[in-house]
Amino acid sequence: MRMSELVKRSGVPLATIKYYLREGLLMAGESHGATSATYDEEHLRRLRLLRALTEVVGLPLQKVRDVLHVLDTPTTDLYAALGRAVAALPPYPPTGAREFPRAKAVLDQLGQVYDPKFPAVAQLERALEAAEAVGLPLSPERAEAYGRHVRGIAEAELSGMPEGSTQQAIEYAVIGTALHEPVLAAMRRLAHQHLAHQRLKGKTRAHRR
Amino acid sequence: MRMSELVKRSGVPLATIKYYLREGLLMAGESHGATSATYDEEHLRRLRLLRALTEVVGLPLQKVRDVLHVLDTPTTDLYAALGRAVAALPPYPPTGAREFPRAKAVLDQLGQVYDPKFPAVAQLERALEAAEAVGLPLSPERAEAYGRHVRGIAEAELSGMPEGSTQQAIEYAVIGTALHEPVLAAMRRLAHQHLAHQRLKGKTRAHRR
Repeated sequence: MRMSELVKRSGVPLATIKYYLREGLLMAGESHGATSATYDEEHLRRLRLLRALTEVVGLPLQKVRDVLHVLDTPTTDLYAALGRAVAALPPYPPTGAREFPRAKAVLDQLGQVYDPKFPAVAQLERALEAAEAVGLPLSPERAEAYGRHVRGIAEAELSGMPEGSTQQAIEYAVIGTALHEPVLAAMRRLAHQHLAHQRLKGKTRAHRR
Repeated sequence: MRMSELVKRSGVPLATIKYYLREGLLMAGESHGATSATYDEEHLRRLRLLRALTEVVGLPLQKVRDVLHVLDTPTTDLYAALGRAVAALPPYPPTGAREFPRAKAVLDQLGQVYDPKFPAVAQLERALEAAEAVGLPLSPERAEAYGRHVRGIAEAELSGMPEGSTQQAIEYAVIGTALHEPVLAAMRRLAHQHLAHQRLKGKTRAHRR
């Protein structure tokens, strides 16, 4: 397709597409002479990903580059590639920490395999530390309940991962991790409301709509 | 206790405590003459809450006031008070929207009671809209799995809510909602890593530490 159609179908403005081309974030089209090039479904797909990462997830451009670098590097180790790509997502815990005693205790309790270099380990350590600091440490019982249900969520998510293409699997993991997190956070608050309603109001007043 | 002991036991600097007193965020101590006052466990408790909300959760001062206002207003309707207190937490969806078709569909599917004025409804609508915009809408199967596991999480959380005191119940709900959210987000990423390891690497290489 022509550039004009790429603009139309992607919903990304011409100036932004040109910027992505200059910055190497979007691969060049097939050239037909000095001023004409054509683009295909791969370009459209990449533009959708760029929009998701920049506009919706709000990644800084350097982190977008990190994701694209993982996508564009051929690999036989999908596991490592997924880890590198998801590591581009916020939050970004301070690097340098080497000990994660709280996170390690929870992960050991749950029998989970993990790589301590993965930023989510430091992220969990900081979150546990903050909860502890205000007098709400994670009890082993709570850790067990969280672990069981979070694993159920992760299983549903992994079962939807496209199997055919490494690129598609990585895109799915990055976008799904980032975009379904706020869905889950909102659903948690609404589950609190639902349960509190049942517990505190009884079932006499029907608030269901 | 004297102010010096309050500073020491709370870990909050003197200047900050004086600021909280001036702003009415911390109740005055018991006065003994013009320059002397004593404080008790209630002051300590309030300072811990103020630290949690400002330093750890990062709430702007106006939202801290909203939480304190709920705490300091006697109520017989704990359900409504919990809703108002938790509504002070970010994110703050734009007000004014009246229709939440995506959130409503999910909540109806799950058979949940909800109040459409509760900000989490707008928060869920926005999150679902964003996921849909990048080609990752929440399927009914995924909504069912999320709903089931999120409700399990919320049940564990509600079962830990202090029953005796309305104030303590509200503090628990606000701090727990805010501070365990990042714990759950980190645990989700680590569950992905664990499951991806099992699926992609088999169980031959032991990465468990």
